[in-house]
Amino acid sequence: MTEPTPLRQGSMIGILGGGQLGRMLSLAASRLGMRTHIYCPDPQSPAFEVTPHKTVAAYEDEEALARFADAVDVVTYEFENVPAATARFLATRKPLRPGAEPLAIAQDRLAEKTFLQKRNIAVAPFRPVDTLADLHAAIAELGTPSVLKTTRMGYDGKGQVRIDAPGDAEAAFEALSPKPLVLEAFVPFEKEISVVVARNRRGEVRDFAPAENVHRHHILKTSTVPADIPPALALHASRAARAIVIALDYVGVLGVEFFVVPGAPRPTLLVNEIAPRVHNSGHWTEAVCVTDQFEQHIRAVCDWPLGDPTRLADVVMENLIGDEVFADATNLAAATRPHFYGKAEAREGRKMGHINRIVVKTGAL
Amino acid sequence: MTEPTPLRQGSMIGILGGGQLGRMLSLAASRLGMRTHIYCPDPQSPAFEVTPHKTVAAYEDEEALARFADAVDVVTYEFENVPAATARFLATRKPLRPGAEPLAIAQDRLAEKTFLQKRNIAVAPFRPVDTLADLHAAIAELGTPSVLKTTRMGYDGKGQVRIDAPGDAEAAFEALSPKPLVLEAFVPFEKEISVVVARNRRGEVRDFAPAENVHRHHILKTSTVPADIPPALALHASRAARAIVIALDYVGVLGVEFFVVPGAPRPTLLVNEIAPRVHNSGHWTEAVCVTDQFEQHIRAVCDWPLGDPTRLADVVMENLIGDEVFADATNLAAATRPHFYGKAEAREGRKMGHINRIVVKTGAL
Repeated sequence: MTEPTPLRQGSMIGILGGGQLGRMLSLAASRLGMRTHIYCPDPQSPAFEVTPHKTVAAYEDEEALARFADAVDVVTYEFENVPAATARFLATRKPLRPGAEPLAIAQDRLAEKTFLQKRNIAVAPFRPVDTLADLHAAIAELGTPSVLKTTRMGYDGKGQVRIDAPGDAEAAFEALSPKPLVLEAFVPFEKEISVVVARNRRGEVRDFAPAENVHRHHILKTSTVPADIPPALALHASRAARAIVIALDYVGVLGVEFFVVPGAPRPTLLVNEIAPRVHNSGHWTEAVCVTDQFEQHIRAVCDWPLGDPTRLADVVMENLIGDEVFADATNLAAATRPHFYGKAEAREGRKMGHINRIVVKTGAL
Repeated sequence: MTEPTPLRQGSMIGILGGGQLGRMLSLAASRLGMRTHIYCPDPQSPAFEVTPHKTVAAYEDEEALARFADAVDVVTYEFENVPAATARFLATRKPLRPGAEPLAIAQDRLAEKTFLQKRNIAVAPFRPVDTLADLHAAIAELGTPSVLKTTRMGYDGKGQVRIDAPGDAEAAFEALSPKPLVLEAFVPFEKEISVVVARNRRGEVRDFAPAENVHRHHILKTSTVPADIPPALALHASRAARAIVIALDYVGVLGVEFFVVPGAPRPTLLVNEIAPRVHNSGHWTEAVCVTDQFEQHIRAVCDWPLGDPTRLADVVMENLIGDEVFADATNLAAATRPHFYGKAEAREGRKMGHINRIVVKTGAL
């Protein structure tokens, strides 16, 4: 491994993925004087509007990947489903940050949960399921209700079926097989929180305050900071998030979602999932933190010292889904800070923008 | 005049000028889901790195201007020295915001001071000077020390000569003529402050808190907020700035520089100059305001309601000039937020970036 040497301003950062996260990473990179090159197969990618450097090609196109690698100083990504072969191909040519290992772990729920369990980071009880017999055995051990999930490519509620009684097993298995599956015990959580954490190659680790997340139709709707949780739980979440990036030798920003499970003497935390990238539940940092998650990721990727995640105010981030982006988008209340992604078409369930509602302390200034 | 109708997301904003102000305007426009097209004769313009849409052409190239006008929905600019013919040409094709009148006034110190004086906004005593005889007469009226300035294209200390005694008149006149000149009484000011103010076509007016500015070698070095001035003076500055944009039917952000002149019972304010654009002394807003000056300008230009200029923390903005950008650029102290402009070459006196040092209240969160 080469010594960490901060990339000079004007360096070119390659970003795989042209969605809103890639777009916001590019904007943050520009603030640091960097240039960005976006690689995405979709010619309508919103990130293409914020830089003159782009490649429109499939992630499997090795000629295009080779040209991309030649054109950039470092490669990062906005989504965890970068094909493993793409990651390997690029990593032999240019530094890939975060690396191939966190990608591999985050792409596979079974690998992820096994990794966390080995490091004594609590997760919901789980069993791998390859056959219907596996599933019956797993239900016998974990009980019902439980949730059968594909190990790969699940997001926003896709790729999972709830099992309320042993008799549901066959239908659930039919619905998801022949993909590799995992059965997870149903966790009666009272809320979900998340921590966005960053690490660089010097081993600096910084995390943002935990956010309390509310989903609607399986899509994140709001993140509220501070989360309404006991201080000891916030500290526990911070420690778990930091332990994960340290265990992975991670470089960049990573999101960790936790379930808060009621218990005595106090609630406990289970990790739901990790995402090796900037995270929707960290968009609030843009409005109220000295350094936001996007700049933090770019700093880590560029071998810069990490920035200061200090928070200047309380905040509620609200996602704008589908048509919501048109409702009064220009006419916002006081203390709100919008971010629109410039997407041409407002499809149902599509994340179109977000609004940060900042809690300004009366008479503070 | 057409009714104000908010531009839709995805609209194209044309920006004349590709320097750091154009770049930061483009980044702010992207956050609002807009696209930008940068027009600048310099192929190395830093703003070209933050959008795929550009025109490299002279400001006098009417073919290029016509194509640019066709490609955009509205035109704005990052500098006040847009040639009058260029402004007129574009304004017949697309909305030009701010308009040609504020440009004309800001380009000519004599017109600017006359405009302000007519609206009872105090400026330093001045006299137009076309001939050496005019200058002698002006010195007899205003006394020495005084400052002889070109009426046009003066900035960062260029285009002005100080006159300490009547005997300096001839040399000063020779140094600056045959350009149109103005003699200004020397103002023994104790400090300079500035106010960045915005107005939109609905007549909404919002101003940011006054900043206290320190120059070095005639270039802005720091802006500190809050300014160390009596509250009555801050209110006076705010009112004067608001009166100016109202008098001009102004659309966009405008910077007003004031001299604070000692006096009894309290100091008074004189307007030094106005700039019809986002202003270097407003860069602090980016780090600590709900809406920053760049977003505010884009909102006004797009016929959106103005944003909330509320300030969340105290701050000191420091310009990085020339080589300063390389000194420790990556390794910043806590509570600092950098912005680098991505300029290839660090020439002496060139603005390369700025750092906002945020005053985080201990124990506030």
